[in-house]
Amino acid sequence: MKRAERLVAIIQALMAKPNMLIPLPVLAERFGAAKSTISEDLLAVKESLAVSGLGRLETVPGAAGGVRYIPVITQEDAQNFLVDLANKLGTKDRILTGGFLYMTDILYDPSVLRPLGLVFAGAFRNRRPEVVVTIETKGIPLALYTAEALGVPMIIIRHGNKVTEGSAVSINYVSGSSKRIQTMSLARRALEPGKRVLLIDDFMKAGGTARGMMNLMAEFDADVVGTGVLMESVTPNESKLVENYLAVLRLNELDPSTGVSTVTTVLDLDLV
Amino acid sequence: MKRAERLVAIIQALMAKPNMLIPLPVLAERFGAAKSTISEDLLAVKESLAVSGLGRLETVPGAAGGVRYIPVITQEDAQNFLVDLANKLGTKDRILTGGFLYMTDILYDPSVLRPLGLVFAGAFRNRRPEVVVTIETKGIPLALYTAEALGVPMIIIRHGNKVTEGSAVSINYVSGSSKRIQTMSLARRALEPGKRVLLIDDFMKAGGTARGMMNLMAEFDADVVGTGVLMESVTPNESKLVENYLAVLRLNELDPSTGVSTVTTVLDLDLV
Repeated sequence: MKRAERLVAIIQALMAKPNMLIPLPVLAERFGAAKSTISEDLLAVKESLAVSGLGRLETVPGAAGGVRYIPVITQEDAQNFLVDLANKLGTKDRILTGGFLYMTDILYDPSVLRPLGLVFAGAFRNRRPEVVVTIETKGIPLALYTAEALGVPMIIIRHGNKVTEGSAVSINYVSGSSKRIQTMSLARRALEPGKRVLLIDDFMKAGGTARGMMNLMAEFDADVVGTGVLMESVTPNESKLVENYLAVLRLNELDPSTGVSTVTTVLDLDLV
Repeated sequence: MKRAERLVAIIQALMAKPNMLIPLPVLAERFGAAKSTISEDLLAVKESLAVSGLGRLETVPGAAGGVRYIPVITQEDAQNFLVDLANKLGTKDRILTGGFLYMTDILYDPSVLRPLGLVFAGAFRNRRPEVVVTIETKGIPLALYTAEALGVPMIIIRHGNKVTEGSAVSINYVSGSSKRIQTMSLARRALEPGKRVLLIDDFMKAGGTARGMMNLMAEFDADVVGTGVLMESVTPNESKLVENYLAVLRLNELDPSTGVSTVTTVLDLDLV
């Protein structure tokens, strides 16, 4: 195998398994090259990644070491992407009867979810979450892509009690906007005690659901290291029921009678 | 930029946007090379992909043409992966009270979902689905990865009626195993009429849910070109309510009293 072909094969193998540590001897054997040759190749790949900004290589030294590919998004790409997304969402035809904003198509579209997952991963990577937790249904795809970008598993909190997952912990909570009492539950075996948790959801109005998720996490002795939502509404403009969350988009107004809705994006993201 | 570095950059750019057509002039401009040079580079990338089996390049000629990266899994990798998965699922500690099999962790794990999505995409690519449809909740991640591997959007059918998505079509169906009447619904604007649809779900017992999904799709004049489930139960062993579906795993027995469960995998996958 020539050097150029080997480099292509290496970056392929790494990108196909993001966040997974691949030992150097494994690469050496697969590509029939000396470990020293592979090390040189990895330097070249590293440089190329530094230029493209699409990801970076992390090298772990030692016997149990290896190399892993961390997918990232640059500050600039993230900002451009979010401005585009805000414009796309702030159009008249997305306003639904009852004053809701239609964004389901966006929330289920892999080509939008992939960069969004990288944004959330970049925003929270430094807090070292061990698991991403969401609540069904619309936030699931976003949580999943965030989890993959971070290289951690995802867990879904269910509404009500589902019998097919064994014993579960349930709590009641008041959804801040609807004021109704609801139940959310999570199977005991889904989350080990003491984990560092990142909460991800699609939308935050009053924050009652996020508050409920935090309370449920407390039942698992989990450490909530961050909360990320795709969009928050500016109303209620008194303080939300949770603090210290990241909302990358904000719904500033939505008036079904005039057909006006404006969506803006945060401009001070700090991604790693 | 030297050739080797450019090759690495090209495969990166392509893999970061699977199934998206990238015009040659865009690549030429980004990497500061002539179109003829990029064409040669793409041949080298193509060869490397042919060896690794991780994906393939599709070239579309003409003014509106370009190149796209199609992620695939080889027959051999798929088979090994599925045998491993079947063994992992057929263990005593996964048997839950009530005769259920715990597989939620598997269903939410990106490192499992990615190859599974490639398996379903490979099995159904020839039927040219335009959208992947699932029903909440546990099948969502699987449907999402299948959709990304195929380069099409995903749509989630909801239980009951959700107000935040505008007017919806609802149908009642009888879940074959529970014999209860339930409701599933899909927003009118979520699916244009006449689309080619691939149904994906996590588990099939009697097939009542799949039957219901097909009936709902008929309301949208959709053409169901395939149905894929991760696992089917061997009971009820009389015929299921649907035909012509692909179940990649099969739960042959599950006996909570003896702690025995056996999961097998299909051995005649034909992936493209």
